[in-house]
Amino acid sequence: TRQIKLAVIPGDGIGPEVITEANKVLDAVLVGTDVAIERTHFSLGAARYLETGDTLTDEDLDAIKQNDVILLGAVGGAPGDPRLANANIERGLLLKLRFSLDHYANVRPSILLPGESSPLSNPGDVDFVVVREGTEGPYVGNGGAIRAGTPHEIANEVSINTAHGVDRVVRYAFELAQSRPAKKLTLVHKTNVLVFAGALWKRHVDAVAAQYPDVTVDYLHVDAATIFLVTDPARFDVIVTDNLFGDILTDLAGAISGGIGLAASGNINPDGDFPSMFEPVHGSAPDIAGQQKADPSAAILSVAMMLDHLGLPEQAAQIRDAVAADVAERNGQASRTSEIGDRIAQRITASVTQRA
Amino acid sequence: TRQIKLAVIPGDGIGPEVITEANKVLDAVLVGTDVAIERTHFSLGAARYLETGDTLTDEDLDAIKQNDVILLGAVGGAPGDPRLANANIERGLLLKLRFSLDHYANVRPSILLPGESSPLSNPGDVDFVVVREGTEGPYVGNGGAIRAGTPHEIANEVSINTAHGVDRVVRYAFELAQSRPAKKLTLVHKTNVLVFAGALWKRHVDAVAAQYPDVTVDYLHVDAATIFLVTDPARFDVIVTDNLFGDILTDLAGAISGGIGLAASGNINPDGDFPSMFEPVHGSAPDIAGQQKADPSAAILSVAMMLDHLGLPEQAAQIRDAVAADVAERNGQASRTSEIGDRIAQRITASVTQRA
Ligand SMILES: CC(C)[C@H](C(=O)O)[C@@H](O)C(=O)O
Ligand SMILES: CC(C)[C@H](C(=O)O)[C@@H](O)C(=O)O
Repeated sequence: TRQIKLAVIPGDGIGPEVITEANKVLDAVLVGTDVAIERTHFSLGAARYLETGDTLTDEDLDAIKQNDVILLGAVGGAPGDPRLANANIERGLLLKLRFSLDHYANVRPSILLPGESSPLSNPGDVDFVVVREGTEGPYVGNGGAIRAGTPHEIANEVSINTAHGVDRVVRYAFELAQSRPAKKLTLVHKTNVLVFAGALWKRHVDAVAAQYPDVTVDYLHVDAATIFLVTDPARFDVIVTDNLFGDILTDLAGAISGGIGLAASGNINPDGDFPSMFEPVHGSAPDIAGQQKADPSAAILSVAMMLDHLGLPEQAAQIRDAVAADVAERNGQASRTSEIGDRIAQRITASVTQRA
Repeated sequence: TRQIKLAVIPGDGIGPEVITEANKVLDAVLVGTDVAIERTHFSLGAARYLETGDTLTDEDLDAIKQNDVILLGAVGGAPGDPRLANANIERGLLLKLRFSLDHYANVRPSILLPGESSPLSNPGDVDFVVVREGTEGPYVGNGGAIRAGTPHEIANEVSINTAHGVDRVVRYAFELAQSRPAKKLTLVHKTNVLVFAGALWKRHVDAVAAQYPDVTVDYLHVDAATIFLVTDPARFDVIVTDNLFGDILTDLAGAISGGIGLAASGNINPDGDFPSMFEPVHGSAPDIAGQQKADPSAAILSVAMMLDHLGLPEQAAQIRDAVAADVAERNGQASRTSEIGDRIAQRITASVTQRA
């Protein structure tokens, strides 16, 4: 038996609900395999903060690092909650995990499945992956203010970009592009304005491109990229971009390809020094929490990415097929969170039984 | 007679073509009024740089400042041109103008006219304005690199945000929101990540909101804002945002509301210390330059914004009506640049004659 240690961080809002379904599907797909999951549950997020004042302690982080992979739901309390006014759960928990665990490749696929609706009238064949840098750029938290609250306040935010950080994610993106049929890579940045960071990105893409002669490379300014995402999303294959641009582009990408309820992601540490973390792109949606209204598909598809990462592509494909089949039958009808999870798990069980 | 001094900067690529039509329409709409335009033509952009090595000299800037308003086409040479490798025309010319002339309110309306096509299948009633801060944020050019070109390179970009700069553009946006039927203002930022800049923006919006009790205020993270721009753009009325987020959102906004060929903008110095500058949102599109393929409507609508700014709302409305009528009759058919300009100018002439 292969033992896999899984850290589960359900988090806040709809996080626990979608993670319940993701775990259900994970269990279903592993029946009859020699893989056993050993789960450790971490109670982190706004609820924990309100109880203890802690966001992510060193002990938490050490315990999480003992695992092979991490599955995360969503974090963040209700936006207006005054008790959270001074807590930044996103920075203190989610970003701290990504940075501490050196998740430098934040991988976010966008596929428009048959039956999925898109706000675009003519989306075409949408199937691309955004590789978002995850450990530097404007996300480093290197900001500050002087004279805060006065008419003379100055607030700065520093985007830090390194050859080390850019080169490794660019290489990851080229490897991915080479493994895909279209073999195309688009760098998205704003080189005409952010000239220093832009030059660094451009130089590394050009240098690595020379080692991947079969990958077609192009460049778009981030503003132009948003235009193409709504006028011709099928033009994209692999996009590589900085942390902030990636944040923006992947929400837009989710919206045009079936909605954010289907957008999965992996925060990957390709070097294997730390566990990689898989999470839906959506947030904690406190307004619908506990109501069984959330679509768990994004969390379930994140489990598929996790299985691919663990070297279990067959099981990953079973999940993807089951989600695709479920989406095709939904006809835009909403279901309860647990019903969607049940249907997908049952579909997997049925197809595995059939094959056996 | 009222004399208006107009600085005309046709620029590069399709800039001169669309500016020819914009001037044609401006002349047509002023026939029979007591307004006389005194134009000064400035040859600036990639062509000038290649000839003289200059982008925007102090003398140019002084001469431009002698005018009441500026009409700009587009700037930027062919992306791959090796002779421009070390010229940053965008920073050295366009951004230098915006910064030197303190264009702190970059105003970009998005209206989906009847007959205009949108990539969205169900756009709804799109009619909003993005007020983009124009003189600070990540655009300040405060970046640098050490060890450039080595594996130890670090490239930083500093976003600078001041109470002075944020407060004035927020006030401008509230004034605008109050003047519109929906009276709604949405702040777009990324306060959960860019916590210092975000806090500054949030605090000023909250403070100014107290002085505009009839304006409804909400907040969206920039990533979420891109989702709403494709799923429910009709929810927006006035958006106020930082320089970089505004750049990204307005290209997307242009794309969903009839395309970037119709997106006009004003770089406004509301204090009147310097001439304001009006320009289409689109770029110089060197690939179609000189072929009479560009749609001059965005440039023509920028003239309408200019006339509003000059206190000539009747003439501005005449231009807008004529563009709307032309768009309604186009049926998605492309025409030559000059034909579109001719049609719109003739329509204005006819309606003015009719009324007289
Ligand atoms: C919650 C937030 C910090 C996060 C981000 O900005 O990365 C989220 O938007 C995402 O895309 O995963
Ligand atoms: C050309 C470029 C510098 C400019 C910007 O980024 O502001 C353009 O994209 C715009 O939106 O006017």
